[in-house]
Amino acid sequence: MESIINRRTIRKYKKDEVQKELIDSLLFQASRAATMGNMQLYSVVVTRSEEIKEKLSPLHFNQPMVKEAPVVLTFCADFNRFTKWCELRNADAGYDNFLSFINAASDTLLYTQNFCTLAEEKGLGTCYLGTTVYNPMGIVEVLNLPKLVFPIATITVGWPDENPEQQDRLPHLAYIHEDTYQDYSGDQIDIIYFCKEMLEENQKFVEINKKENLAQVFTDCRYTREANESMSIGLLDALKKQGFLK
Amino acid sequence: MESIINRRTIRKYKKDEVQKELIDSLLFQASRAATMGNMQLYSVVVTRSEEIKEKLSPLHFNQPMVKEAPVVLTFCADFNRFTKWCELRNADAGYDNFLSFINAASDTLLYTQNFCTLAEEKGLGTCYLGTTVYNPMGIVEVLNLPKLVFPIATITVGWPDENPEQQDRLPHLAYIHEDTYQDYSGDQIDIIYFCKEMLEENQKFVEINKKENLAQVFTDCRYTREANESMSIGLLDALKKQGFLK
Repeated sequence: MESIINRRTIRKYKKDEVQKELIDSLLFQASRAATMGNMQLYSVVVTRSEEIKEKLSPLHFNQPMVKEAPVVLTFCADFNRFTKWCELRNADAGYDNFLSFINAASDTLLYTQNFCTLAEEKGLGTCYLGTTVYNPMGIVEVLNLPKLVFPIATITVGWPDENPEQQDRLPHLAYIHEDTYQDYSGDQIDIIYFCKEMLEENQKFVEINKKENLAQVFTDCRYTREANESMSIGLLDALKKQGFLK
Repeated sequence: MESIINRRTIRKYKKDEVQKELIDSLLFQASRAATMGNMQLYSVVVTRSEEIKEKLSPLHFNQPMVKEAPVVLTFCADFNRFTKWCELRNADAGYDNFLSFINAASDTLLYTQNFCTLAEEKGLGTCYLGTTVYNPMGIVEVLNLPKLVFPIATITVGWPDENPEQQDRLPHLAYIHEDTYQDYSGDQIDIIYFCKEMLEENQKFVEINKKENLAQVFTDCRYTREANESMSIGLLDALKKQGFLK
């Protein structure tokens, strides 16, 4: 499992094609991931068309990977296929609700991670775009997603054309709790975030953004309350429009 | 990646211990999964205590794995740790909202799948309990989860004491769409679900439950509208109680 341990996010890709057969085969192998009641509550839209990438790009805040990667994969929670099957069989499909969304989104994310592991093992580079849930209705429209289908994760894929440093991670005791959750004291928080705060690149971010510390870079620049609250409203509204919330 | 391709859910485990060092090391390696802004928005509660397993068991509908597995892992979306850090640094943490929940839940599920892959590669058996989101407040209480921590996935882990058949999966064209989503015709649905409907074990389920077809086994016995709708209300209520929804 060297490919997991040595993993880096890859944002720059060679111009080389990534064959359809390879992507299909990895997407099939990934389906061995655990799935709720073996329902496989996901779909994946494989985008290679320049025109569609052009339309997706602003929805992902114009991150260059969307247009530059040979393949863009949008992983969607999908209760549409299963519901259509039930309806054709005279079965009352009660999956237009929030629990069913969470079930389908869970299936989708386990499947997404399994795909990434398999792709990286083959030498492909991937980048996970968290922006997928920032403007979901835009993606719904571009990809023509019907009701009970919801975009959850976008992965750009290609042959790596960079070899960046591995990012830091928290010490493992930061997130492992024995038997029950032990809440953090101030001293523990200081220890957990010490290395992250000391990193030269993070200290530069603090300086450039004229903030007192790294936490303020997150709260005031990267992930602000205002943006989170506004996007929360859009996300809940999108869940209603796609039929997962009353 | 033979371990991914040959994967089976393992529900029966040997009595042998699974060492703490092994679990900790796998949980640390798994943290290389992609994470929103490198915030690592998850925690994992590692339960070995018989007493706590006893309390968790009914919350997972008394599935025997909870009491029989040497280790039960509850993976939680966690914005508590990050928020505490921000508050200690005089930074306005605006993560008590639904978008932040989805971000943390996504981080958690990618991390969970990465852990499962690494564990299975070491020969461990795992079972994913989808029941975690069915009665989240019960788990919150037993594991003492503070606000902005929410249980997302439970994995039971142990050395395999069974070697079950691999479960069927849909043909890959069932869930792969080119460029945009192509909705399914009735004929396509018939093809996609044909093998699943023909499986001997599934035909037995139809017979035992006195249903017309397999879809009705899902809608009338396994995942009913009534249960889904009632658990949706509980889930949204739990999100409010844990501070992720207004």
